[in-house]
Amino acid sequence: MLTERSYSAILGNLGNTCDRFCRGYKTNPSTLEMLKAVAAIPKVRGIELAGTWDIRPDNVKEMKKALDDLGLRCVSIIPDLFADPIWWKGSYSSKDPAVRKKAFDYTRTMCDSAEELGCKIINLWPGQDGYDYLLTADYAREREWECQAVRKLAQSYPKLRFALEYKPKEPRTHSYLARMADTLLLAQETGCKNVGVCIDTGHAFVAGEVVAESIVLAQRAGNRLFHMHFNDNFTSWDDDMMVGSVHSVAYIEMLYWLDRCKYTGWLSMDQYPYREDAAGAIGESIQWLVKFDSIQRKHKKELDRLIDLGDAVETSRFLRTVLA
Amino acid sequence: MLTERSYSAILGNLGNTCDRFCRGYKTNPSTLEMLKAVAAIPKVRGIELAGTWDIRPDNVKEMKKALDDLGLRCVSIIPDLFADPIWWKGSYSSKDPAVRKKAFDYTRTMCDSAEELGCKIINLWPGQDGYDYLLTADYAREREWECQAVRKLAQSYPKLRFALEYKPKEPRTHSYLARMADTLLLAQETGCKNVGVCIDTGHAFVAGEVVAESIVLAQRAGNRLFHMHFNDNFTSWDDDMMVGSVHSVAYIEMLYWLDRCKYTGWLSMDQYPYREDAAGAIGESIQWLVKFDSIQRKHKKELDRLIDLGDAVETSRFLRTVLA
Amino acid sequence: MLTERSYSAILGNLGNTCDRFCRGYKTNPSTLEMLKAVAAIPKVRGIELAGTWDIRPDNVKEMKKALDDLGLRCVSIIPDLFADPIWWKGSYSSKDPAVRKKAFDYTRTMCDSAEELGCKIINLWPGQDGYDYLLTADYAREREWECQAVRKLAQSYPKLRFALEYKPKEPRTHSYLARMADTLLLAQETGCKNVGVCIDTGHAFVAGEVVAESIVLAQRAGNRLFHMHFNDNFTSWDDDMMVGSVHSVAYIEMLYWLDRCKYTGWLSMDQYPYREDAAGAIGESIQWLVKFDSIQRKHKKELDRLIDLGDAVETSRFLRTVLA
Amino acid sequence: MLTERSYSAILGNLGNTCDRFCRGYKTNPSTLEMLKAVAAIPKVRGIELAGTWDIRPDNVKEMKKALDDLGLRCVSIIPDLFADPIWWKGSYSSKDPAVRKKAFDYTRTMCDSAEELGCKIINLWPGQDGYDYLLTADYAREREWECQAVRKLAQSYPKLRFALEYKPKEPRTHSYLARMADTLLLAQETGCKNVGVCIDTGHAFVAGEVVAESIVLAQRAGNRLFHMHFNDNFTSWDDDMMVGSVHSVAYIEMLYWLDRCKYTGWLSMDQYPYREDAAGAIGESIQWLVKFDSIQRKHKKELDRLIDLGDAVETSRFLRTVLA
Repeated sequence: MLTERSYSAILGNLGNTCDRFCRGYKTNPSTLEMLKAVAAIPKVRGIELAGTWDIRPDNVKEMKKALDDLGLRCVSIIPDLFADPIWWKGSYSSKDPAVRKKAFDYTRTMCDSAEELGCKIINLWPGQDGYDYLLTADYAREREWECQAVRKLAQSYPKLRFALEYKPKEPRTHSYLARMADTLLLAQETGCKNVGVCIDTGHAFVAGEVVAESIVLAQRAGNRLFHMHFNDNFTSWDDDMMVGSVHSVAYIEMLYWLDRCKYTGWLSMDQYPYREDAAGAIGESIQWLVKFDSIQRKHKKELDRLIDLGDAVETSRFLRTVLA
Repeated sequence: MLTERSYSAILGNLGNTCDRFCRGYKTNPSTLEMLKAVAAIPKVRGIELAGTWDIRPDNVKEMKKALDDLGLRCVSIIPDLFADPIWWKGSYSSKDPAVRKKAFDYTRTMCDSAEELGCKIINLWPGQDGYDYLLTADYAREREWECQAVRKLAQSYPKLRFALEYKPKEPRTHSYLARMADTLLLAQETGCKNVGVCIDTGHAFVAGEVVAESIVLAQRAGNRLFHMHFNDNFTSWDDDMMVGSVHSVAYIEMLYWLDRCKYTGWLSMDQYPYREDAAGAIGESIQWLVKFDSIQRKHKKELDRLIDLGDAVETSRFLRTVLA
Repeated sequence: MLTERSYSAILGNLGNTCDRFCRGYKTNPSTLEMLKAVAAIPKVRGIELAGTWDIRPDNVKEMKKALDDLGLRCVSIIPDLFADPIWWKGSYSSKDPAVRKKAFDYTRTMCDSAEELGCKIINLWPGQDGYDYLLTADYAREREWECQAVRKLAQSYPKLRFALEYKPKEPRTHSYLARMADTLLLAQETGCKNVGVCIDTGHAFVAGEVVAESIVLAQRAGNRLFHMHFNDNFTSWDDDMMVGSVHSVAYIEMLYWLDRCKYTGWLSMDQYPYREDAAGAIGESIQWLVKFDSIQRKHKKELDRLIDLGDAVETSRFLRTVLA
Repeated sequence: MLTERSYSAILGNLGNTCDRFCRGYKTNPSTLEMLKAVAAIPKVRGIELAGTWDIRPDNVKEMKKALDDLGLRCVSIIPDLFADPIWWKGSYSSKDPAVRKKAFDYTRTMCDSAEELGCKIINLWPGQDGYDYLLTADYAREREWECQAVRKLAQSYPKLRFALEYKPKEPRTHSYLARMADTLLLAQETGCKNVGVCIDTGHAFVAGEVVAESIVLAQRAGNRLFHMHFNDNFTSWDDDMMVGSVHSVAYIEMLYWLDRCKYTGWLSMDQYPYREDAAGAIGESIQWLVKFDSIQRKHKKELDRLIDLGDAVETSRFLRTVLA
């Protein structure tokens, strides 16, 4: 029996959008307005909250009530390890021990808030942990610091699951958690069962990965796929577009393998609708996933056969009957 | 009134496939066997012949008869400017004047064969014209040689149309005819109306181009889109895969713009079915194009509206109704 | 006789740096502080000013005096066609005629300021002119609007030179002025001699171009290389790093071809020192260029010979004697 | 005390070169001629032999004598898992059990030859193990087969070291051993200490890796860096060019980290001199490495300081004093 899919979105996707050239393409709605907008998107039952903006120790109770009122579950908390300029040269892997300590202590606060909210996942995207220039980083020492911080957090909060979100680059020219496999290596090095990975489909495309294969890698490394962020792009950059706007077959395949690997977590939308209606763009992604998912579940046996067969012409023939 | 599409294929696609590691994944059928296999693919009415392998002065008559018997038209001749090791450091742009002369003379032979065959297009892919290492090429002089050769050919054969096929790299690390716009510049520099461009969709993907936009560029530069080669890839390399195996929306869009730009040329399949049944793989590409084309033609007004509107959420909503 | 190089920098490079995640890695110095910092960088004699931030009709006189006092020339004005959210869906190519008119009128204001300042170049980077999603843009109509705006500007200000800065993507997933050759096509379509191109070396790397070849393309299209922006990157994205941090040989080659093509314009630094001392980073780029330039000028005859010869082993042998 | 570097080359680099378009740019020298040519390259003391072409059970004795006569050591054997068309859809991970068995048995033969030759490393590049099209591969089962084959080989030959060479793509659109970290995961899954990794610098560039960081990853995963293949490229494809022709700083950094990680293995040249004098091209790569290595060893303390400091401007300042 396959589980019903659980769809969610990142709250911040509903808000203001900016880039390094323009400080804001839109005006910023209030947190409550954003929450209501998310709750109104068909199929959405969960929300991811970014630390500091959306969730702070001082507003946990208030947020809990708002979520309850709207019938939303808090799917994950994403501590802010990327926006505060204090992390400009890294958080857990900063060369400055005071910054490393602050990153650790701050994440603990977010873990406390998560427990208070009944949220099970801390989605760690240490976006500033990496390097820009050659011959400026101590890859050995800094990776070890990264690993130690995650281990200590995971040991301190054994009931939480820590999903490490990888991304090859941006905001640094190179991230320490860059691809599925290096992130799995680090997760294993922590020695903690509650450290795993979050796949952002767009990050994986940029990394040159086939997402379905990355899902299998995570399963092989001890069932470490904890979370999924969905979006699409043109493969050279994290464009954070609506699902289905560039790729089609890839989503059918990844949903099939999520089932094969018995993934029961959330399908969360993580986009950056710079110039689009945000709720509309998130809703579209979900509707595409619903379609792709229904295709692969309906034709599961045929897909099993095709994957077993390995004949690309046969696969194409099948896909033509279900797409277009 | 829209013209009916004319589908064709490159004869060599039916043959042996090799790469730099393996000298042949399959055994090589005879030319006649390949011709028969192409003729049997549904919708195919034309064939492209590669110089020397498929077509030589000594077999023109025989080939003409074979094509007539099979009801195939010769869509284009592709002179061999890439396989003969004499072109190892360039053909029209070689530093060696004897090689340049030979490339020119050889192409004339192919033009004569084309006229004899009633073929209207010479598809020029000067794949060896380019460079590998920095500080080894005289970009000014070599581009000028390229331009002069094409001009003289076009002037000598005013009834033929010369379609320049661009590609960013391979077999050289950089090609002189690399992208749509530089190829258009060279076509304009010849001063000849019968010099235009062939888009290979996979080459355009590798170049980072949106094919639909490239079609418009060619139209703006004096209706210079003469020919189309179809295939698909993962965008980082010329994988020469079946249409639709990675991308979907892009094909709908490019077919729409082919109509908008009143393209009446051939839709030719150019693949490299290393490990696939060749006729099956070519047939699949055509069937995908037929599907995508019927979608865009059926919904032409809606697509006009969406392109006029520029609302990505609306476009997505439409695409969901026609794809998946 | 070769001209002495003229080095300059973009004023904004000295200022605050942000990205889509972090609103500011540094605190913002005042315009005057930035001007003084630029003037203090060895070799710098010119400055580029961004419209609205740095230069507005109301501060032209004041700016002129400040530049005179510091002995700096205004090399170019870069109208703000990327930061004001009014351009969120394009400036000259916006679907909204009111926005197109505003973009045109605003640029005229900047042209007036340029003339008042004695500045000869308007550096146009219409960064928002492009598109994000397939089937949302009218490539034909929007490109034509782009072309018309540039033509009218160039005709209105015949003493100014308009340098079009191309970039494959960012902030849009696809820019209309994307690569050297498509930008040259548009420049030619204006029919104006005072429309040319600005090469940003990093944009060209991302476009897969060899900058030296792009320099030659611009020369062939009617001596249309008007301006140069220098920086370096890892080739997949516009990292805006210091010159020489990733590539070396490429800079030697491009400086050689600037001489061959008799470029007498400015060598301007355009970086984004997110986490670096800005004046230091700009100064480094200039010092690298000075070194690379002295190498190629000193060995001009040998480079002529190597380029004529086309033997990569010989080129390598030479490079080892001058690099490392 | 740092070990003296040991340089070697792959014998086949001296031979014929071809690609999928041209069956041979050069004429093929005999094995003995190639051996002599390698032995004559300054600094070269070792050779890598490709299975079947260079080394077969029937010529081991003869080869041993030839190597002894020329004073060359056999550094590694590279079993042919890529050229024989029997592996067209995979070797260790083929869906066909007979092919898998044959791949295993064949590799054993090569291991026997290695032991007979006194060669310590089997360099495994299972280039055909991967997939081309989505929904044609069983990532879980096929990866497991790959892992089992390597494990059984490593257990059978405990005195040999198995270096897995990763590469993101080519000849398949996706390889199973694609990047450093996924290869380390597989190495660890074998449970064998004598399974490690070979970095081909060009493959790592294509994978978006910084080689120095990959060296550190291998060290962290249990000192699993067994072998190094050197070449350079333009980062988008495995161009197999001479070291130093595109990148400079990257080599200084990787040699520094090889020392930091106490790498004592071979520095082997792996190029594809399609149009270059092969011995000259290999010799150039070695001379560049000698230069880069002497720079980093001479300035080791300064590099330690810069890596500790993390100031890119300071790093640039230093690099200018040693490069250019």
